[in-house]
Amino acid sequence: MGRDASRVETFSDGVFGVVLTVMALELLQNGPARDPGRELPDALAHAWPSYLAYVITFGIAGQIWLGHHNMWRYVVRVDQVLVVFNLLVLLFVAAIPFTADLLSDNLRGSDTEQRLTAALYLGTVLGESLFFNLSWWWARRRRLLHPGLDPQLARAVSRRLLVRPLLYVTAFAFVFVDPILSLVLYLLLVGLSLVRRPGDLPRFAAEADGEVSDRGR
Amino acid sequence: MGRDASRVETFSDGVFGVVLTVMALELLQNGPARDPGRELPDALAHAWPSYLAYVITFGIAGQIWLGHHNMWRYVVRVDQVLVVFNLLVLLFVAAIPFTADLLSDNLRGSDTEQRLTAALYLGTVLGESLFFNLSWWWARRRRLLHPGLDPQLARAVSRRLLVRPLLYVTAFAFVFVDPILSLVLYLLLVGLSLVRRPGDLPRFAAEADGEVSDRGR
Amino acid sequence: MGRDASRVETFSDGVFGVVLTVMALELLQNGPARDPGRELPDALAHAWPSYLAYVITFGIAGQIWLGHHNMWRYVVRVDQVLVVFNLLVLLFVAAIPFTADLLSDNLRGSDTEQRLTAALYLGTVLGESLFFNLSWWWARRRRLLHPGLDPQLARAVSRRLLVRPLLYVTAFAFVFVDPILSLVLYLLLVGLSLVRRPGDLPRFAAEADGEVSDRGR
Amino acid sequence: MGRDASRVETFSDGVFGVVLTVMALELLQNGPARDPGRELPDALAHAWPSYLAYVITFGIAGQIWLGHHNMWRYVVRVDQVLVVFNLLVLLFVAAIPFTADLLSDNLRGSDTEQRLTAALYLGTVLGESLFFNLSWWWARRRRLLHPGLDPQLARAVSRRLLVRPLLYVTAFAFVFVDPILSLVLYLLLVGLSLVRRPGDLPRFAAEADGEVSDRGR
Repeated sequence: MGRDASRVETFSDGVFGVVLTVMALELLQNGPARDPGRELPDALAHAWPSYLAYVITFGIAGQIWLGHHNMWRYVVRVDQVLVVFNLLVLLFVAAIPFTADLLSDNLRGSDTEQRLTAALYLGTVLGESLFFNLSWWWARRRRLLHPGLDPQLARAVSRRLLVRPLLYVTAFAFVFVDPILSLVLYLLLVGLSLVRRPGDLPRFAAEADGEVSDRGR
Repeated sequence: MGRDASRVETFSDGVFGVVLTVMALELLQNGPARDPGRELPDALAHAWPSYLAYVITFGIAGQIWLGHHNMWRYVVRVDQVLVVFNLLVLLFVAAIPFTADLLSDNLRGSDTEQRLTAALYLGTVLGESLFFNLSWWWARRRRLLHPGLDPQLARAVSRRLLVRPLLYVTAFAFVFVDPILSLVLYLLLVGLSLVRRPGDLPRFAAEADGEVSDRGR
Repeated sequence: MGRDASRVETFSDGVFGVVLTVMALELLQNGPARDPGRELPDALAHAWPSYLAYVITFGIAGQIWLGHHNMWRYVVRVDQVLVVFNLLVLLFVAAIPFTADLLSDNLRGSDTEQRLTAALYLGTVLGESLFFNLSWWWARRRRLLHPGLDPQLARAVSRRLLVRPLLYVTAFAFVFVDPILSLVLYLLLVGLSLVRRPGDLPRFAAEADGEVSDRGR
Repeated sequence: MGRDASRVETFSDGVFGVVLTVMALELLQNGPARDPGRELPDALAHAWPSYLAYVITFGIAGQIWLGHHNMWRYVVRVDQVLVVFNLLVLLFVAAIPFTADLLSDNLRGSDTEQRLTAALYLGTVLGESLFFNLSWWWARRRRLLHPGLDPQLARAVSRRLLVRPLLYVTAFAFVFVDPILSLVLYLLLVGLSLVRRPGDLPRFAAEADGEVSDRGR
């Protein structure tokens, strides 16, 4: 049955891989080299929002991939519903380059433009986070996780995943105060998420076998 | 021999992954951000057919991936003919973003435009469905499936796969009555296909080992 | 050591997957929907060389993938040189969409244009075929193949791989007589290559274990 | 635990696969076929910097993939930090097509343009090389490598990886003397790196099992 979970991972990795490189393609095709009216140094400097969009997208999609990787390590079998939830996660992940690009294009725009694009961007991340939570909740409920997984660890992961969309909603609310502040808050939350929590990949090799007893892979 | 089937899956997943994200690239490169004559809120609202094309393509390609996944779980060896049939399935799958985009662009067009693009779109899906049926038929006939697969289940999957193109032909026939109605019918059929049938991924973990006896993977 | 060969396959599959779908992206972004001066039915009809380029690219890249798959089934370990040869195969494979598109654009062009683009196209395929032969030759010489592989079969595969570039050179020579004839000859050769030869995937499941004795995977 | 390392490889291969083919897409969409003011033979000849960018990108990304492959063969478990370092390597790898294209576009430009684009290009490669070193250093320190790996070999690999960025910095310094010379030096270094060193894939099959004793995969 392990092949099922592993195929879902391969397929998701294909989508993540394209999402990460799509922004580089955008830089290549619509970047400074295609800016006819400017001198090169000027064109390169002027394109900074594109670089920002590239780094933000890479950071966000990379972080989601990491979360995906952390979760799917525990999944030993899949059913139709889990796969559909995973497809919905990918639907929102694949839309991130589009909304990140809109956002970066309008960072210097009017208040309405900033607010609208920040809202769209956070909406995408919120949608991804929602279906991610549903995936984990379903996998736990239907006993699709490794039987040796410590129930306390599973609960800790659930709590932690649930906090993410709540924090995003808070960051989202600040869009109506100040869009830039809202974005800064959001990036802070991404940074925080890299701090190690239960359910993460082990930081020390020695912990590796402690989490899941009797792994037998 | 299992490596053969698994490589066909990896390769197909690569194609599916790109197909799913290609529409997001289209949104990025030709979407509202590149619409020079309009204000942003207006440009975003005006681009709704692009979002529809994105969601439709994701839905359709995701559903086909699910079917592909369900079928290939039972395949334990491959031959040249099966691989060629699989390539032909992918040929039609990879054309879906193109026809879905044409369709969404002409939803507000004249009767001829609606009819033509709906016909093209359903033709693509029909072609995919045809070669998908041929794959399954061939795999059964050449005994490429898992020997422990219940013959009754195999017959049920065959019947079910056969119903799909027949329903599509019916939906297709309605193009000559009303293109929008034809599309609605089609989306209904996609929705129906998510209802669980024999051969699907198990909904309950407990059923998982009942379907294929003596799996021994 | 099997993980090495399998990673080369995964990586190559990523490249093949993108190559197969790149033409669909081209259809999407520069296809009939983006042809401003024409009515839709006319624009769709006018774009036939693009469809041809799509089908040709899919056919060629699919056929090369099949050959790649057939060869790598026998590879059990890899070394630096084999991986470099494989990268060079992929370098030419990835250039196929570009040359196929050039070719299809100039099918209605002048004699010079037809000759030049047919030459470029066949050159790409020739390059791929050359490094493919080198891969197989190296893998045999360095004993990277499965030890149980029948030496007679290995020789038959070598002979057959060697015939391919020779036939391509012949087809290439006809460019100077008539470019269209040269292309027709080439497509005929692709068709012929789908006829089963030694070293192909087994057509009948019963043959599967006969080819490689003591497979033990 | 091996599935963890293997998923990082699959994911990285997805990114590498797209990076390798992105330049071919650029050739297809902005190449000679889209050059309206010129005759075809002239347009093809005029596009030589694009071909150079394609070959350079393929060469560089292929070489980095080879290094990645060589390193990850020894990794048997991963932790959060190693995965983040790997994401940062990919961040720079995915930017290579963009900087290589900028470079090739400005090979015939002014001194400032040559210097600026060569600096950007080498900066990208330097960044990749830096995080690559960090990955290896971390994997060694945290004992994520195969326990049977010869410590002497591990030290040799470390030394060798460390030399790479130092050589790049040297090549980089020459940008201020002559940008073309700097690039030639850089390409020389890439060529040198293909010469076999300790830790590479074995050149002879017989060596294969000597490097890692008690592999037991």
